[in-house]
Amino acid sequence: MNTCTRRPVSNIFLDALTSALGDRVSTALAVREHHGRDESMYATCPPDAVVFARSTDDVVTVVKLCNEHDVPVIAFGAGSSIEGHVLPFSGGVTIDLSEMNHIVAVNPEDLTATVQAGVTRKQLNHETRNMGLFFPIDPGADATIGGMAATRASGTNAVRYGTMRDNVVSLTVVTAEGKVIRTSSRAKKSSAGYDLTAIFVGSEGTLGIITEVTVKLHVQPEGISAAICSFPTVQDAVQCVIATIQMGIPVARVEIMDTAAVKAVNQYSHLDLKESPVLLFEFHGTPDGVTEQSSMVQEIAKETGGQDFNWATQTEDRNKLWTARHNAFFASMQLKPGCRGVSTDVCVPISRLAESIDVTIDELAKSSIAYTIVGHVGDGNYHVILLIDPKNAEEVAEMERINHGIVQRAIAMDGTCTGEHGVGVHKIPFLVEEHGENALDMMRALKRAFDPKNILNPGKIVSLN
Amino acid sequence: MNTCTRRPVSNIFLDALTSALGDRVSTALAVREHHGRDESMYATCPPDAVVFARSTDDVVTVVKLCNEHDVPVIAFGAGSSIEGHVLPFSGGVTIDLSEMNHIVAVNPEDLTATVQAGVTRKQLNHETRNMGLFFPIDPGADATIGGMAATRASGTNAVRYGTMRDNVVSLTVVTAEGKVIRTSSRAKKSSAGYDLTAIFVGSEGTLGIITEVTVKLHVQPEGISAAICSFPTVQDAVQCVIATIQMGIPVARVEIMDTAAVKAVNQYSHLDLKESPVLLFEFHGTPDGVTEQSSMVQEIAKETGGQDFNWATQTEDRNKLWTARHNAFFASMQLKPGCRGVSTDVCVPISRLAESIDVTIDELAKSSIAYTIVGHVGDGNYHVILLIDPKNAEEVAEMERINHGIVQRAIAMDGTCTGEHGVGVHKIPFLVEEHGENALDMMRALKRAFDPKNILNPGKIVSLN
Repeated sequence: MNTCTRRPVSNIFLDALTSALGDRVSTALAVREHHGRDESMYATCPPDAVVFARSTDDVVTVVKLCNEHDVPVIAFGAGSSIEGHVLPFSGGVTIDLSEMNHIVAVNPEDLTATVQAGVTRKQLNHETRNMGLFFPIDPGADATIGGMAATRASGTNAVRYGTMRDNVVSLTVVTAEGKVIRTSSRAKKSSAGYDLTAIFVGSEGTLGIITEVTVKLHVQPEGISAAICSFPTVQDAVQCVIATIQMGIPVARVEIMDTAAVKAVNQYSHLDLKESPVLLFEFHGTPDGVTEQSSMVQEIAKETGGQDFNWATQTEDRNKLWTARHNAFFASMQLKPGCRGVSTDVCVPISRLAESIDVTIDELAKSSIAYTIVGHVGDGNYHVILLIDPKNAEEVAEMERINHGIVQRAIAMDGTCTGEHGVGVHKIPFLVEEHGENALDMMRALKRAFDPKNILNPGKIVSLN
Repeated sequence: MNTCTRRPVSNIFLDALTSALGDRVSTALAVREHHGRDESMYATCPPDAVVFARSTDDVVTVVKLCNEHDVPVIAFGAGSSIEGHVLPFSGGVTIDLSEMNHIVAVNPEDLTATVQAGVTRKQLNHETRNMGLFFPIDPGADATIGGMAATRASGTNAVRYGTMRDNVVSLTVVTAEGKVIRTSSRAKKSSAGYDLTAIFVGSEGTLGIITEVTVKLHVQPEGISAAICSFPTVQDAVQCVIATIQMGIPVARVEIMDTAAVKAVNQYSHLDLKESPVLLFEFHGTPDGVTEQSSMVQEIAKETGGQDFNWATQTEDRNKLWTARHNAFFASMQLKPGCRGVSTDVCVPISRLAESIDVTIDELAKSSIAYTIVGHVGDGNYHVILLIDPKNAEEVAEMERINHGIVQRAIAMDGTCTGEHGVGVHKIPFLVEEHGENALDMMRALKRAFDPKNILNPGKIVSLN
């Protein structure tokens, strides 16, 4: 199923597209191939054409044509998804939204910003920095805000600030019929009907195409401090996290890296972190509040085997540390030249996190696949980055076996197969294990209701066949 | 439309219901009438039968029978909704969930609790108090958790802890076909497909019947303090709130009452608050953090005309104050014996709150309808409680005119017609003004997909005719 099975689109359709959108349409092979891959392990599968949209109207034009001609249409942001989300396995038109990179409005008084879908998280933060505001969601890549909304992304700040689910206020969406809707007002809360915003957040382009996003901004805390602490084992580090969360200490970030991840990050980002399992912390608050939080956590770390607590008090040092953490996926891939990284993404209730990681490490020890472990452990979410050669069938099979085992155990612990990466195609088989057939029937009913002709990123999230 | 237009259900159906559920079925007039009203102004409209469900299986049995016989089915919790949500205008069976009041599990380590839909918010807080945990969502009434989920309710703590949207982790739902689904795992975050939880939160029983709810619990703060501060005008008080929110001070509660509401509360709850516009504050955090927050807010209050800042440091005094606030709706009704209170519920971006309230007060001054104003002003949400005789057509028309004006202005300010009360039947006409026809079409498509025979609380939220 996850192979290119497209029927080429008709010339009549391509002519109509070009006549409507002129030089915003490209059928050049290099352009199509660039839009036929993401950061997943899948082989390139180019669309039939790429349209570089500059406005919601452009998206409407493309979707209406695709609807009329029964042609699949796939939204594309930064191409940084990792489960095959944007690969046009059934062909069709990819709408590249990266040129829709205009910040429409920042409302500092309301702590909101409205951006076109192609604005990236770093671009938005650059814009709001001097207002004393920031946008907290930070997946590893400099993804687009539209893509992050479509994936229900999160990152290192989610433990304190939530995910895209919690930080998207409203969306402008083009429906399968090419109609434009706005999912909500900018009110901080509403009970005015079905939660259309939440329906489209995490829908991966399968229910509509997001063209504008209103997000929450947050006030930059007066006090920030970061620290790194080494532990004898990953398990000790996890115990420290669990105690911190269960005490209700509002850490802004708490991230784990195992020894292999630290080695990878040291090499890739030219750092000299002690090569042992570590926790990275960040504390936000008033200066007094930060001191209070960090001394409580330091105490917990001491009790759970933490061996030192090094502070990164300078903004520059902090940024270096977090940039290194954000690059951990790419750093890990450098450990095995030519490999692809396949990242597991389970998230479990925090009471089960230690057990989940323990068994996973035991299982990994029995395998020859190289790996690193990183994770947003404050949320119960961690990633095993499995380093494989996608052309080596045995390695792929072994990776899938390990991944599936991790997922099955997470689901048995009342957790999820994906905390933040999304489903794409790779995780479709896990959804029935996680949600059951009845719930999947409701998801399919929703898909059919919103996209009756199955033209919107077909074959992703739910399989209708 | 909002009148009893039911065709009586067949005896065959009633016999089948009774044979399946025995003495859990009642067709006694008193029971039916009790389930034919809520706290809205609508005249009683009894269902044809009431079933007192004791389990999800009971709900499945009823829904399957109703589905088979095309009979409307309405979920009923505490009956405290105020827009006609639970009134069976097309007849049918009301499922009373109040006997499903079992706390299924409290997971203190994960900060979650799973409860049957009929558990009330006070019951849950009673259960978790000794664990050092609490459930923050607090509408005025002691509503059921299921009803609060179905209404996307909030209350005084939402400014800090969010609404039901943010605090529901997972739901057990009986679908229109009588199938049981669980909408999510207990993982703190997930990207595993469409957000079924969010779809059912706020759906008012029109997409499925919620029978179990897993909610987030929060750690009781080490330090709590509350204060009340008087202001010369409502406008001055609002300016104080806006400055507090825009500075990012994490107040746990900030509530407004106008002079009339203070008078009502003083009478009803035997208090002696100064009869002027007031703000009620609560601060949560570490003891130092609470001191820091409250002194910052005290400073802001001074600058915006606050005339005193009285502390309620004892738990007992605090509880008395918040109980009085929660009873403000009922207290207001006592100002005009025999009246009903109709509460507006707009929520606007905080940058527009002062203007919204200013114009509203000007408009109210031109009318003879008695009113009080209370509100969760930290969220931009406030209620004008209009005191009318529902049998006086002129008063009803005047109330509707005022309400509509408040809503129209809120929507023009990019706000919502309802921050927390929901749509029921009363707010259906406002949805098209707020969302537009295209977005409403998507809501209707969702309703048709999840409830093809339109048996689930028909005529609420969206009108399909």
